[in-house]
Amino acid sequence: MEYPKAINDLVESFSMLPGIGKKTALRLALHVYSNMSEAKTENFANALLTVKKNVVNCKICGNLSEDEICPICSDKTRDQTKVMVVETVKDLYVLEALGVYKGLYHVLNGAIDFSLGIGVDDINIKSLIERAKKGTIKEIILACNATLEGETTSRYIKALLDGIDVKITRIAHGIPVGGDLSYADQTTVLKALEGRRDYNE
Amino acid sequence: MEYPKAINDLVESFSMLPGIGKKTALRLALHVYSNMSEAKTENFANALLTVKKNVVNCKICGNLSEDEICPICSDKTRDQTKVMVVETVKDLYVLEALGVYKGLYHVLNGAIDFSLGIGVDDINIKSLIERAKKGTIKEIILACNATLEGETTSRYIKALLDGIDVKITRIAHGIPVGGDLSYADQTTVLKALEGRRDYNE
Repeated sequence: MEYPKAINDLVESFSMLPGIGKKTALRLALHVYSNMSEAKTENFANALLTVKKNVVNCKICGNLSEDEICPICSDKTRDQTKVMVVETVKDLYVLEALGVYKGLYHVLNGAIDFSLGIGVDDINIKSLIERAKKGTIKEIILACNATLEGETTSRYIKALLDGIDVKITRIAHGIPVGGDLSYADQTTVLKALEGRRDYNE
Repeated sequence: MEYPKAINDLVESFSMLPGIGKKTALRLALHVYSNMSEAKTENFANALLTVKKNVVNCKICGNLSEDEICPICSDKTRDQTKVMVVETVKDLYVLEALGVYKGLYHVLNGAIDFSLGIGVDDINIKSLIERAKKGTIKEIILACNATLEGETTSRYIKALLDGIDVKITRIAHGIPVGGDLSYADQTTVLKALEGRRDYNE
């Protein structure tokens, strides 16, 4: 016997989400049917539609926004000469929550991954080059992940910025402050060694 | 900085689901925004609303159904004299998938749990007694879970059926066929011992 079509349809939708398999999707669908009030289910459905309708990527930096220009790009008190390049919106919000950076951002919304067919034109790189060409940006800080894809992306950005008068830096990888050396992985130790500096610096 | 309101609203909705915390909810909401097509998101929203609108509990047994009477209760080829009592719709579908039982069901949609304030009137018991009173049912098979709540529920059902001419049985608990005795837990072994029968039976 099959579950009613409406349940199966909802299972189908839930199981399109990352990390949710058929069994979990069924549990969630049955929960919606039996335990979620009609009002809350309507809110849920509306929230799904509203996210698609009201949220856009900021025209300047690619951050999530309900306006054309996001709150960070609109904030004239921030350092307009620095742009930190991050792979995802989540990275941006994590950094913002830490409150240690007061410049602008550029969200790539992905990283170059040729194995998945994601090339330079598939992520938000072109607009970064355009921004750099305008001349107000003095420093571009690359904060892509320390993965093969992140490295490839960083290299492409550096190459594309060639000839434009802007300083290109990257955030330091190494042992976390308070982290124990014995728990660090090989790559992190390698990066920490590569990035070593004079003790007096 | 806060995520746009639309994103926060969707995070709120996702995190009302069982087993989904704030972090997972955020990941799912961002996935909907960036990776789910508009058409699929609309399907998702519709599926949520349709489940609440089109799915009902069968008037007879409490099973999920898109009609007043579910396909199992409508199926006249099934043994109309046997009713198996299960706690959840999921139990019913699991049993149906196994294909070993050809009688009818009664879905309680829960179990008595006084610690959560769930009493006899909060689950689908009354309609079971009404069904039994009609006289066509010859046997009621209790298949509640082997938990405190399941046991309490079984006892209540037995007490409420007192004086009605119907055989009450319960499914056997014991060592699973093919299961290794050394991996069985105490309660299962106890139930297996309690349920022991003559070797010749």
